[in-house]
Amino acid sequence: MQSAYRPIRVGLLGAGSVGSQVARLLLENSDELANRVGATLELSGVAVRNLKAKRDSDIPADLLTEDAESLILGSDIVIELIGGIEPAKAWITLALNSGADVVTANKALIAAHGPELFALADQLGAQLYFEAAVAGAIPIIRPLRESLAGDKINRVMGIVNGTTNFILDRMESTGAEFADALALATELGYAEADPTADIEGFDAQSKAAIIASLAFHSEVRVESVHREGITTVTAQQINAAKAAGYAVKLLAICERAFEAGKDGLVIRVHPTLIPLAHPLASVRGAYNAVFVEAESAGQLMFYGAGAGGPETASAILGDLVSAAKRHLAGGPGLADSTHADLEILDVKNTVTRFQITLEVSDETGVLASIASVFSTHGVSVETVQQSAAASHSGALLTVMTHVALESDLDRVVEALRNNDAVVQVNSVIRVEGL
Amino acid sequence: MQSAYRPIRVGLLGAGSVGSQVARLLLENSDELANRVGATLELSGVAVRNLKAKRDSDIPADLLTEDAESLILGSDIVIELIGGIEPAKAWITLALNSGADVVTANKALIAAHGPELFALADQLGAQLYFEAAVAGAIPIIRPLRESLAGDKINRVMGIVNGTTNFILDRMESTGAEFADALALATELGYAEADPTADIEGFDAQSKAAIIASLAFHSEVRVESVHREGITTVTAQQINAAKAAGYAVKLLAICERAFEAGKDGLVIRVHPTLIPLAHPLASVRGAYNAVFVEAESAGQLMFYGAGAGGPETASAILGDLVSAAKRHLAGGPGLADSTHADLEILDVKNTVTRFQITLEVSDETGVLASIASVFSTHGVSVETVQQSAAASHSGALLTVMTHVALESDLDRVVEALRNNDAVVQVNSVIRVEGL
Repeated sequence: MQSAYRPIRVGLLGAGSVGSQVARLLLENSDELANRVGATLELSGVAVRNLKAKRDSDIPADLLTEDAESLILGSDIVIELIGGIEPAKAWITLALNSGADVVTANKALIAAHGPELFALADQLGAQLYFEAAVAGAIPIIRPLRESLAGDKINRVMGIVNGTTNFILDRMESTGAEFADALALATELGYAEADPTADIEGFDAQSKAAIIASLAFHSEVRVESVHREGITTVTAQQINAAKAAGYAVKLLAICERAFEAGKDGLVIRVHPTLIPLAHPLASVRGAYNAVFVEAESAGQLMFYGAGAGGPETASAILGDLVSAAKRHLAGGPGLADSTHADLEILDVKNTVTRFQITLEVSDETGVLASIASVFSTHGVSVETVQQSAAASHSGALLTVMTHVALESDLDRVVEALRNNDAVVQVNSVIRVEGL
Repeated sequence: MQSAYRPIRVGLLGAGSVGSQVARLLLENSDELANRVGATLELSGVAVRNLKAKRDSDIPADLLTEDAESLILGSDIVIELIGGIEPAKAWITLALNSGADVVTANKALIAAHGPELFALADQLGAQLYFEAAVAGAIPIIRPLRESLAGDKINRVMGIVNGTTNFILDRMESTGAEFADALALATELGYAEADPTADIEGFDAQSKAAIIASLAFHSEVRVESVHREGITTVTAQQINAAKAAGYAVKLLAICERAFEAGKDGLVIRVHPTLIPLAHPLASVRGAYNAVFVEAESAGQLMFYGAGAGGPETASAILGDLVSAAKRHLAGGPGLADSTHADLEILDVKNTVTRFQITLEVSDETGVLASIASVFSTHGVSVETVQQSAAASHSGALLTVMTHVALESDLDRVVEALRNNDAVVQVNSVIRVEGL
């Protein structure tokens, strides 16, 4: 198409699965993108570590370069897809300093160094886009930043890691144990060779920090996000939850600590029971979903595929079109305001329901003794269900509490462990969405 | 807060339920909004038809005015919440011509006159925002316009009318007939005194036109959207669907007509069978949801409350913050490109599955005769289920087809009606989401 503008030069850092998809879309859909932007997007080069490495992609060889810095300095918009902290951070800094806008999918970098990079971009009048860093192609950053900009968000609960959702869903639907479900996830390519970042919740922790900072206009450091993984979740636990009407999901929960009587935030990633009727419970396989509760908008949910190559590429291209339009016309910065500056509170300030399963000896008065442990520490019990314990002659108790402060619940659990009638406390899990 | 900018004057047209909420949020959250925008948003006035009318709102009396035109000419941003075509169109035109940006929730106006209003805004360098016009507080306009701007959308299916979803959901969950469910919807305030716009699908038709024009970068006139309402849906039909594993939903479907071998769009609003496992099937009550299928992003769904006062106000405020930021800093226009200029095809080009229920006389050879009607017209049958007919001695057949062209299916239905073995054709319903 004819355009009044010179082409916008796009430099791509990284030629992995996402990078290859982005390059393909840029080349294949060049006319359509030019129509949408108002100027041609010209892929000026793709930086790779080693030109000679064998690669499974259609990127024309003459676009590949090992000289990332020259590519950056010759680009109007830089797309960073190499991941990790360095050299990604140095190259993004170089790009911003050179006057380029930047699009990235690098959640680890944004979670760890977002505030300083946003400050730099803001100071330079440049832009840093990162829709692809959270929940793949699901548009969540833009709705939080813009659509809900006039509302007050009270809570965000997200299934933001496809690998762990696949594993938990598999355990639920087939009765498989964690190790078997993980093995299948690895075989199918849903889990990486080293699955630690996913199954221990580090990935979700980074995303929770990013989501919370946007939703609550506050600086959130990754370290202040409470994190538990799913490695200790058992098939038995999932089956029992299902029978009781709950699904077990690894949720990233970002919420205002109103209920603890404080004006701060609690941000936490952990396995959670949610009622089967809750919209998050029906998110299957490797899908992601983010559930938002806002004062005026009420309950919203954003659902879609997690981070695969094409899905992430779609998010990158969406950001690229925004960046390119702004490159032509200028416009308001997206720099994330941290004016609210809310304090990030310890997870002990969580107010929620808890389900505790424990094995007790089968003696008269045990139930009364257990009940008094809860009431002594100010935790109100909603239901107690008793069944035969698998491992000994006693009974298995499943206790569902009313909403309680986590620090109170901790004292309950400690007291239970010291109680003579208690053989062992099997599990303590938070319950949301009721 | 201290700001380098003078206040941005916001003029509100209309003080109904949404207008009152918008005014309240603007006044109550003034500091927070100033922080987010970078300048104070000053509610300069609220135009009403009759100052003396009794109104149930907290808007300070000195803000009310009957002089809408002076208010418009003294505002930087005009929020239009009076609805209908005139005087809304004249006032929006006046606002744009005066250099103001406009935020509106007026789906009827955008659907009927969007293209000319966008062209005017574009020519003047002004902006016209309308997130609130579709699906209440669910951010769908921004994701379609921006997040998916680098992707190719193949299909959008939406539950975009809360009233009809409430009615169909009620019929499904309680077995109520349409008239009773409608009466309850009216009693609860989900349906208006004259429910025609909702139950006959006019409201969804307007929204389908807006969604399709954004998703497919083409001009879509309301009249080119095929429309069927839900007034003929029976409790018996819904029960039978449920037993067969389907929900009945009023869907607004916008899709490329690839399957009919054409490079155009088919846009249609009608009761639809969708499998119970499909994410749209679990959208209950008056909730809305929009399901998007894009080439790279895959399947996405946006879910939330339909158009209530607070929800719509949230969407309005989100647009207002965007408009105000752009007012301060300029930036790329959002004018919707219609460069793709795809043809809107007749609904007969739909390719989908159909479920046909018909009553037949109980004679030997009837099934073979019916089956040959389908095959003669090139429609392949997947299953036929036979049960006793309620009204006569014959049998009730429920036929599910494979995907077929709607014009072929029409010929099948016509031939069935002329077939001696057929007592009557009870229903024909399209099936999606398989």
